[in-house]
Amino acid sequence: MKNQLTVFKIGGNILNDDTKRNAFLRSFSDYKGHKILVHGGGRQASVISQKLGVTPHLRDGRRITDAATLEVVTMVYAGLLNKRIASELQALGCNALGLSGADANSIQAQKRPVQDIDYGWVGDIKEVNDSILKVLIKEGLTPVFCAITHDKKGQLLNTNADTIAAELSKKLSATFKTNLYLCFEEKGVLLRREDKDSVMRELNYSQFKQYQKTGIISEGMLPKLDNGFSALKKGVEVKIGNPVNIFQSPFSGTKLVK
Amino acid sequence: MKNQLTVFKIGGNILNDDTKRNAFLRSFSDYKGHKILVHGGGRQASVISQKLGVTPHLRDGRRITDAATLEVVTMVYAGLLNKRIASELQALGCNALGLSGADANSIQAQKRPVQDIDYGWVGDIKEVNDSILKVLIKEGLTPVFCAITHDKKGQLLNTNADTIAAELSKKLSATFKTNLYLCFEEKGVLLRREDKDSVMRELNYSQFKQYQKTGIISEGMLPKLDNGFSALKKGVEVKIGNPVNIFQSPFSGTKLVK
Repeated sequence: MKNQLTVFKIGGNILNDDTKRNAFLRSFSDYKGHKILVHGGGRQASVISQKLGVTPHLRDGRRITDAATLEVVTMVYAGLLNKRIASELQALGCNALGLSGADANSIQAQKRPVQDIDYGWVGDIKEVNDSILKVLIKEGLTPVFCAITHDKKGQLLNTNADTIAAELSKKLSATFKTNLYLCFEEKGVLLRREDKDSVMRELNYSQFKQYQKTGIISEGMLPKLDNGFSALKKGVEVKIGNPVNIFQSPFSGTKLVK
Repeated sequence: MKNQLTVFKIGGNILNDDTKRNAFLRSFSDYKGHKILVHGGGRQASVISQKLGVTPHLRDGRRITDAATLEVVTMVYAGLLNKRIASELQALGCNALGLSGADANSIQAQKRPVQDIDYGWVGDIKEVNDSILKVLIKEGLTPVFCAITHDKKGQLLNTNADTIAAELSKKLSATFKTNLYLCFEEKGVLLRREDKDSVMRELNYSQFKQYQKTGIISEGMLPKLDNGFSALKKGVEVKIGNPVNIFQSPFSGTKLVK
């Protein structure tokens, strides 16, 4: 029987708020079984960008990454946030090890081809090299990934954290019974954006596509769900919720179903 | 017989200069045997500090680390520089893995006690935990350390990169035949600062103390040599040179001797 592995993804809303971050990291630290944490940090990067006079650009919830922005996100994601999380988890007794995709060549990506939009130094994942991850997990370590990858040619790349979490889950599902828990600010996927309690308890792919057509699901939720469904197809259990309900049983957020 | 391990330390002068950095990383990548890279980056941190309106303070070649400065050095050392080096080494075929002391609790430090000077969030190393390092090295990985440690209570700390390199060497000398190669801008320790070729080919501890008394050795060289001699005492071979001569045989820099 496969051992269980849970990949959690958290975003900037948790990272920016000391109380929320501490509460999440405590629950994460107490969570049983092998685990990986993937974090974003776009909001924090925007703050530092502005201080440095680098103007942040977003399109469809995705960041346009020029050279100056890549430097900022590398500093903020791989430096400030990744090491803060690693040290805070260490204090909680969780043996965290922070990583970017460049480290041990764990996530190799390629610069996104220019079509309608030039996203700049944004990387689409080509391959997750899980051999070293399996060693680290076996040694009792908890990998903590920031949203930075590389192209194996010396270029760092900015990669969506949901995508990193999904691709890690998919690759590691060959070895582990894998869960992917995507945490964001809402309790789950909402039927009515203005009603924070209108959580869809289950969502299948055809419903998703229908809701996309009618505009009920839009913007940042689209790539998140694309990532979630691509993991589901590989046999990963996918849940979407907030940093509190994601740990609760029974689960009150959104579970993706086939 | 013990396997050989070489710990290289490089500073900001190499990191800031693309040509020098590329040349060093190529030689490092080609260097045979197990190896670890430790890097500083104070100059780059000062540039970013100034852009962010954080005033850098130095005293006796050591940085005073207030909370804002700690954020900057964490971003620059652990983010920008560490991931740049990791990705560039990956491109050269060297399987680098970037680390801070918080990662896998590899280097635990404590905030330096306030005596004459309050250095701020500066950490003196308490313990190197080499168990995970030995696993990584066995797996063919090359650890790349930035100059950030932690106190295991959730606090990141700024730690002198020479000290990190020396403490890693000392701890790992129990397992490996260990060399410590400290690279900086000069060819070695100079007898006359104005004569760049006046390299001391060998230096023993009593000479060092004599040169310190007469002012021939001063400022930033003092902690560097203190670190070097503390490693030498543990049986580590210690060489001081620049990023070119450190790889050359016969060695034309300064070798520390008993």
